[in-house]
Amino acid sequence: MKAARIIKTKEPLKVEDIATPKPSGEQVLVKVDSAGVCHSDLHLWEGGYAGPQGVFMKVEDRGVKFPLTPGHEVAGSIVEMGDKVTGYAKGEKVLVYPWIGDGVCPACKAGEENLCDAPRSLGVYQDGGYGEYALVPSYKYLVKLGNYDTAAAASLACSGLTAFTAVKKAAVKDGETLVIVGAGGLGLMAVQIAKAITGAKIAVVDIDDKKLDEAKKLGADIAVNSGKGDPVQGVKDATKGLGAEAVIDFVNNAKTAPNSFNMLRKRGKLVMVGLFGGSMELNLPLIPLRAFTLTGAYTGKYADLVELVEIAKKGKIQSVVSRRFKLDEVNTALEELKAGKILGRAVINP
Amino acid sequence: MKAARIIKTKEPLKVEDIATPKPSGEQVLVKVDSAGVCHSDLHLWEGGYAGPQGVFMKVEDRGVKFPLTPGHEVAGSIVEMGDKVTGYAKGEKVLVYPWIGDGVCPACKAGEENLCDAPRSLGVYQDGGYGEYALVPSYKYLVKLGNYDTAAAASLACSGLTAFTAVKKAAVKDGETLVIVGAGGLGLMAVQIAKAITGAKIAVVDIDDKKLDEAKKLGADIAVNSGKGDPVQGVKDATKGLGAEAVIDFVNNAKTAPNSFNMLRKRGKLVMVGLFGGSMELNLPLIPLRAFTLTGAYTGKYADLVELVEIAKKGKIQSVVSRRFKLDEVNTALEELKAGKILGRAVINP
Amino acid sequence: MKAARIIKTKEPLKVEDIATPKPSGEQVLVKVDSAGVCHSDLHLWEGGYAGPQGVFMKVEDRGVKFPLTPGHEVAGSIVEMGDKVTGYAKGEKVLVYPWIGDGVCPACKAGEENLCDAPRSLGVYQDGGYGEYALVPSYKYLVKLGNYDTAAAASLACSGLTAFTAVKKAAVKDGETLVIVGAGGLGLMAVQIAKAITGAKIAVVDIDDKKLDEAKKLGADIAVNSGKGDPVQGVKDATKGLGAEAVIDFVNNAKTAPNSFNMLRKRGKLVMVGLFGGSMELNLPLIPLRAFTLTGAYTGKYADLVELVEIAKKGKIQSVVSRRFKLDEVNTALEELKAGKILGRAVINP
Amino acid sequence: MKAARIIKTKEPLKVEDIATPKPSGEQVLVKVDSAGVCHSDLHLWEGGYAGPQGVFMKVEDRGVKFPLTPGHEVAGSIVEMGDKVTGYAKGEKVLVYPWIGDGVCPACKAGEENLCDAPRSLGVYQDGGYGEYALVPSYKYLVKLGNYDTAAAASLACSGLTAFTAVKKAAVKDGETLVIVGAGGLGLMAVQIAKAITGAKIAVVDIDDKKLDEAKKLGADIAVNSGKGDPVQGVKDATKGLGAEAVIDFVNNAKTAPNSFNMLRKRGKLVMVGLFGGSMELNLPLIPLRAFTLTGAYTGKYADLVELVEIAKKGKIQSVVSRRFKLDEVNTALEELKAGKILGRAVINP
Repeated sequence: MKAARIIKTKEPLKVEDIATPKPSGEQVLVKVDSAGVCHSDLHLWEGGYAGPQGVFMKVEDRGVKFPLTPGHEVAGSIVEMGDKVTGYAKGEKVLVYPWIGDGVCPACKAGEENLCDAPRSLGVYQDGGYGEYALVPSYKYLVKLGNYDTAAAASLACSGLTAFTAVKKAAVKDGETLVIVGAGGLGLMAVQIAKAITGAKIAVVDIDDKKLDEAKKLGADIAVNSGKGDPVQGVKDATKGLGAEAVIDFVNNAKTAPNSFNMLRKRGKLVMVGLFGGSMELNLPLIPLRAFTLTGAYTGKYADLVELVEIAKKGKIQSVVSRRFKLDEVNTALEELKAGKILGRAVINP
Repeated sequence: MKAARIIKTKEPLKVEDIATPKPSGEQVLVKVDSAGVCHSDLHLWEGGYAGPQGVFMKVEDRGVKFPLTPGHEVAGSIVEMGDKVTGYAKGEKVLVYPWIGDGVCPACKAGEENLCDAPRSLGVYQDGGYGEYALVPSYKYLVKLGNYDTAAAASLACSGLTAFTAVKKAAVKDGETLVIVGAGGLGLMAVQIAKAITGAKIAVVDIDDKKLDEAKKLGADIAVNSGKGDPVQGVKDATKGLGAEAVIDFVNNAKTAPNSFNMLRKRGKLVMVGLFGGSMELNLPLIPLRAFTLTGAYTGKYADLVELVEIAKKGKIQSVVSRRFKLDEVNTALEELKAGKILGRAVINP
Repeated sequence: MKAARIIKTKEPLKVEDIATPKPSGEQVLVKVDSAGVCHSDLHLWEGGYAGPQGVFMKVEDRGVKFPLTPGHEVAGSIVEMGDKVTGYAKGEKVLVYPWIGDGVCPACKAGEENLCDAPRSLGVYQDGGYGEYALVPSYKYLVKLGNYDTAAAASLACSGLTAFTAVKKAAVKDGETLVIVGAGGLGLMAVQIAKAITGAKIAVVDIDDKKLDEAKKLGADIAVNSGKGDPVQGVKDATKGLGAEAVIDFVNNAKTAPNSFNMLRKRGKLVMVGLFGGSMELNLPLIPLRAFTLTGAYTGKYADLVELVEIAKKGKIQSVVSRRFKLDEVNTALEELKAGKILGRAVINP
Repeated sequence: MKAARIIKTKEPLKVEDIATPKPSGEQVLVKVDSAGVCHSDLHLWEGGYAGPQGVFMKVEDRGVKFPLTPGHEVAGSIVEMGDKVTGYAKGEKVLVYPWIGDGVCPACKAGEENLCDAPRSLGVYQDGGYGEYALVPSYKYLVKLGNYDTAAAASLACSGLTAFTAVKKAAVKDGETLVIVGAGGLGLMAVQIAKAITGAKIAVVDIDDKKLDEAKKLGADIAVNSGKGDPVQGVKDATKGLGAEAVIDFVNNAKTAPNSFNMLRKRGKLVMVGLFGGSMELNLPLIPLRAFTLTGAYTGKYADLVELVEIAKKGKIQSVVSRRFKLDEVNTALEELKAGKILGRAVINP
């Protein structure tokens, strides 16, 4: 089989001919139809990312080993199965849950493999979907797609799932206000999911009017341009001066986080998602006095991906796929993503 | 009736003869047996407290009006009832839930009157228990004491309830570790409550070996003296290097909070309680990456006070009452509290 | 003020001129715009209802006293307020939460006054809305309507709230199936609410094709006519032979309940709402072996009514008001309801 | 290795020499120190059990295949591991979670493999612990025992876990009353667990004074002999006439279930556990009118077994092991269990 692999960080991925894995036990071999190209693939390729205090965090220090076939957003159809696989058939279309854990840490025991102490994520710690076939360690990580489009499905496994988890954690009720900070891919996904599963009023904050327009088209009730005025005041104005019951910050950097915090109503909840880095000065007595909660959301658990796919199947989430690449074009895809030329999502169709 | 009142801030309280209130409707008149003397009574007396950035926060700016009879920890027996009162009898011993709300804000609607947008707390925004009698706005704020001692009961309404709420929010399970930072009155209360309602391993952090010894007597499994070594390392050592599932910080100032944060295990929860002020630098990407939750606890809701009194009745919480004062001695009581001369709790027996 | 009162059971209601109440303390006087006419008003009028084993359950044995002004679905505007009322203004349109409890039983302490041990429901145990004015014991029982129509709002307080509670208890997720048994007023309300707050597939069971058509118009995915075939098989066919995750039985009699039970999937939940009487033979070992849950829903709590009104304001629930009567026509309204001549809901506009 | 196998139902188990399995992938080979002898092993041996209406339910109709090595309560030490096993070491003492599911049904996806649609339980649908070694399909089904005794641990996997699940489902609070019906092995386990994890008052109902005495020794507050008086009245007397917040019925037959139901307080919960068969007449309108919940408990989920072992390690659960047999004595063990000669629990030490 052909696979596009990172041999060495910062060098072009190499499309190699490697042995097609043979599934045994609970393993499943999936023929990849669509593999999403995600920003974190860039981190792998570059060998790390800028961490707090400007320190470069090397992925190899966190257990990543090269050569590696990246690709954690994998959708395709089953071609072969181990003898312990049940409930699936050859030819069935599936999405792969990539956030595989070790199965023994407390997170895994609670069904939150995405927060495993020793993660084995597909496309990160083991070979992923940038290839003709992907070996999935167990049928338990598959989600049935039925007739749902694999290209549209792919990004549900990563950005979709993160947005879904964040909206669930925000836990807003009818009549409450949910602020979504950052109207990029994740934020727009969150707008649609919030529209589908909550009855809250949705306010979106961004500096780009085009993105804000898009957010309104997708269901946002209020748009606040943080480049043209104080976003905290904007949210206060929209909530009779009280603030919002929940804020999801998809940027979560030194600039947005203090604002997001100040938008909170008493008893409010700030869900921090963005990994853009930086820090903020936290006023300590305010946390108990105003009964605030700050909580992080990072991808999501398997059971939530199953639920998200059901929502997507009903047509409640617009596909953000804007570009398609062949396996041989993988380096172009990554370069363009890096250069900010890809609006929405690119997928590789091997 | 006689009542000790703050006429003007910073001046001695004056014991006056005022009209005994006549209860109507749902109101209940309670003969005060014991009124706890709490640190926040000092704030009222002094007219405010040091807020963030050294700003003096005036209580009158927050709606407090003088003259006022303080006292929010009130236990006694019913002497008279309005015509709409039900389920109570004259002579019955009761503890008063003082965190009364306006009944219409979202917090009140959710049964969390302690977090009301426009609080009417007894002994703060309306006359409290530093008097022979206290008028309770509704029998719905009473908790039956049975034969339980009123002096021991009084502080359950404030420090007990805060500790209880914090332990509940920590939500630790058998086999997990709960760190309690600060072994003062609140912290020792929390140790006992955690012992009573959870199966977690309890670690206590303080700089005072005597307090740590007391914590161990009351059930703590591990004592960490933060004056003699790095408390973060101490907690890591006690948890195989992993950190604790939950930390309750009863100090919550610039010195303790960063340590409390660093003690957390992945997916850990930091419950912030202390109002000692200050700020900390919050590393933003760590919140999503490690799926942390920071949350505040401030007193507690009525339903929890009912539950806490049940636990106390079973003898699972040691009374911390060390000093008793007559109503005429109220200024002495406050002076001694201010001077740090009262270990445990003082009560006024009018 | 004029009020239509039950002086003696089974005799026509008498429209009398009685003293207009004067609100004090937390009380609010509401000018009644719309008072829903509900089946349980008939029970009051008839003095009781047929209980289990054909025994006539007298309402007077349960604490109801005559003369009484019935009417528990009350919407109107505030005309006068006691001195302790806050957050409301004269002229404001409100819906009244009628399921008032004693405030001291465990249900009340948990915010479930509708399940109070000693209920004081408006229009049942104290005078209700069949009059020009209604005295509400506290502003805490009001829900703000804004510009929402009072006639449409009235039935939310009873049938709407019951349907909402039942759907919430069913707790179905995206991709699951919810069966609603009985497509009468409650069932159709439940279809709309389930459509608004869940992502489940909705199957409706009834013997009347017209009602089933209406259910489909309102959003039901599947209609099963139980008069033309086995409804259990119908539900099984719609769920790949597995059964439904949840069934809400708005009839809940000897005929429907066994079917509803047999429609359940392993781990399924049956929410029993109907009070049509009768019994069923319960196969005991099936409950643990298949991990079933059977649970009752009876009206709902105040916080849920607040949420439901928000949903209705968004236009997600169609008004079922089909007939309007003047106060003088109250006996006609009840007679027609009794005779089954009222489709949807009748309201009295005093 | 030697294993005691059911070759044909109703015939003596045969101790055979079979190939010792070789673990691969995630599999683990455990040297069995203790295998509990459970009543359901008798059902396997007899080929089925008496179901509703006296019908004999054949285990082979439910997918059991012979020959089979029974034994679902398995504790021992790890001797060999597949190449994908992580977090465990050779020689480590472990308890096996036997309620293995297929991993794809909704129950499995929710972490409740014990309620799987297509169960693969160890010792039931695949070979279990009546042998020198047991092959566990994945290290994810192991629970670390540390120094905890394997004989005491074995029954935690079945009766202990069932009792734990039932107590958790009862969800009683401090000050509430929990009734435990049936003071046999499961009931006495439940008394201890309820004592360890709840603050409720515990009432035990049985017909045997000796068992009731034992229950009181283990922590029960109230003993009701249902052979000497009306147990419903007994519970009412102990609860001021109100009934209990929760009842766990470990018998759950035609005789106990109606009583258990009638012991419930308004809003009460009946947890049905016993599989002794029969049916009861369920009064339908009572379920909504009194807001009752009936729910089944059947073994428990993996995460709960982990928690239960932590509780047991603290010495809060007395071992009920009273008899030990060698592998060759397996038929004697089963015969004595069948004859009711084994008080507490028997274990096989291969």
